Amino acid sequence: MTTEQNTRIVLAARPKGAPVASDFRLEHTPMPTPRTGQVLLRNRWLSLDPYMRGRMNAGRSYVAPLEIGETMDGGTVSEVVESLHPAWSPGDLVLAHAGWQTYAVVDGETLRRKLDPAGLPVQTALGVHGMPGFTAYVGLHEIGRPQHGETLVVAAASGPVGATVGQIAKLKGARVVGIAGGAEKVAHLRDELGFDVALDHRAEDFAEQLAAACPDGIDVYFENVGGKVFDAVMPLLNDFARIPVCGLVAHYNATAPAPGPDRLPQLMAMILSRHLTVRGFIQHDFIALYPEFVREMGRWLRDGRIRYREDVVVGLERAPEAFIGMLEGRNFGKLLVKLDS
Amino acid sequence: MTTEQNTRIVLAARPKGAPVASDFRLEHTPMPTPRTGQVLLRNRWLSLDPYMRGRMNAGRSYVAPLEIGETMDGGTVSEVVESLHPAWSPGDLVLAHAGWQTYAVVDGETLRRKLDPAGLPVQTALGVHGMPGFTAYVGLHEIGRPQHGETLVVAAASGPVGATVGQIAKLKGARVVGIAGGAEKVAHLRDELGFDVALDHRAEDFAEQLAAACPDGIDVYFENVGGKVFDAVMPLLNDFARIPVCGLVAHYNATAPAPGPDRLPQLMAMILSRHLTVRGFIQHDFIALYPEFVREMGRWLRDGRIRYREDVVVGLERAPEAFIGMLEGRNFGKLLVKLDS
Repeated sequence: MTTEQNTRIVLAARPKGAPVASDFRLEHTPMPTPRTGQVLLRNRWLSLDPYMRGRMNAGRSYVAPLEIGETMDGGTVSEVVESLHPAWSPGDLVLAHAGWQTYAVVDGETLRRKLDPAGLPVQTALGVHGMPGFTAYVGLHEIGRPQHGETLVVAAASGPVGATVGQIAKLKGARVVGIAGGAEKVAHLRDELGFDVALDHRAEDFAEQLAAACPDGIDVYFENVGGKVFDAVMPLLNDFARIPVCGLVAHYNATAPAPGPDRLPQLMAMILSRHLTVRGFIQHDFIALYPEFVREMGRWLRDGRIRYREDVVVGLERAPEAFIGMLEGRNFGKLLVKLDS
Repeated sequence: MTTEQNTRIVLAARPKGAPVASDFRLEHTPMPTPRTGQVLLRNRWLSLDPYMRGRMNAGRSYVAPLEIGETMDGGTVSEVVESLHPAWSPGDLVLAHAGWQTYAVVDGETLRRKLDPAGLPVQTALGVHGMPGFTAYVGLHEIGRPQHGETLVVAAASGPVGATVGQIAKLKGARVVGIAGGAEKVAHLRDELGFDVALDHRAEDFAEQLAAACPDGIDVYFENVGGKVFDAVMPLLNDFARIPVCGLVAHYNATAPAPGPDRLPQLMAMILSRHLTVRGFIQHDFIALYPEFVREMGRWLRDGRIRYREDVVVGLERAPEAFIGMLEGRNFGKLLVKLDS
């Protein structure tokens, strides 16, 4: 084992706008060695998520910035190779945050949970049964609170957060309008996920289509994209509408301020006149609900009441290209990197 | 009594920007006559409040628009002159919503509560012990939730909402920064109301003064003015800050969109990255808390723990001028019209 090397992908440069391949660098480094309390992990699955774009910037975001030369971080499903921590043993499959690399040493305390290879597919711990699913779950549980008969709108609806939001809202009796890019994704929302209406945000008359799809207005807008979808949503918001804000992927690559007029006063006036609640969050803000989520979502998945879709690329070296594509909406379902074994 | 006339002020024209005297018209009309279930009121005190500006516009606001020719509405302390409703008797002093007029007939059901002439000054039911005080109370109780040691900022802080917000927050152990216009009001916040810091928004270096006054950032910004105060607050907001939005008086007279750049995406990004809660409300959204408020605020007032200031003009005919001045910040304390008796 000690003759092996670690392979990792580091932040080579801060992107100007959309990331490009040269913002990443693949490196070979010596194998890391665990000390007392630590474990050596071999990563099996790596999760690629939009929040990582924020970490590539120097400025303050909802996540701390990475340093240049630092390994790109991310959630992983990993196998314990060597353990100097009493809770973990070689062979354990665990949910970790071990980054874009083949091996990692982490403190045993930081491992989130042990995964059962005989249960749900282990990589769901990175998607519907993990951080994205939990984001959907708490955003609705704590902020969106869709009620029976209300209308919920969610964009990026074929992605792991949006798809889960829409399906949980359906379970709660809400009417769900999902938005995605392209005919194939739209068909998936309608035919596979059972959304009431599915719309393509690329349509020229998208705003009119959305208005027609929401004859009773919008009670919950689950905000994970921003941009022109939010612009189309704004005039349709009902009194007392709730807007959980967990992502703004349409803005992440923006490099310049948007042209005027300044609509900030207009948004504040709408928040007032329509009694809106707009609240930013990340799933960790509600971490106390995590055990309940793992149980309830596990049951929904086993009962087939929540479905999910994965978009898997094989090989760590393909992570940058897949990540760049995800920010352009090219993935279809939860984007995962399966590491070569 | 039947030889008397009613005097009322109606909406004569919809204001373009700031209201002017000709947007109002004083009229003499026959005395109204109550039917079964109704009461004839003689108004003693009329409350003037910023929300009325919204009702003068045709468009959707957080209150329904008045029609041209309709009596300006508003809260009143009124005396029951004649009652055809079993709950009320001639001579009762009541909290009503009987508008800008000397007499009114209203359904007995709409009267909010009976006032005790031997208790707190009856006109406090229109201010600190009424709608503005309740707005402060519920905005903090349900949204702002200032914690011991946190920093709360409130503007229009010598007005009845702002002054009450700041004093309740002090009772909760928060550090309070109040903002008002002019040296006299600023001195009042500091010397009479006991705010930790009081600032004049007219100062050229106001944004710098606010930053210096909030070395630990801002945890609660009670939004009742908007405009440049909000602009100065934004960069200082802490993670998990709460922004109850109950008014935007700085915008009410706006006639044109604000020039660019468009800061809406920036506000949404900040809501996300700092986990902000921005929530619009009116006091009525939390009406279930009203009895608790009346009890608790009554106790605070009798114990001298909450203070209040009134700005009284005498004579219904002076209401338009006083209202116009209020929107320019010329009142100092809760603005009341004492009707000639």
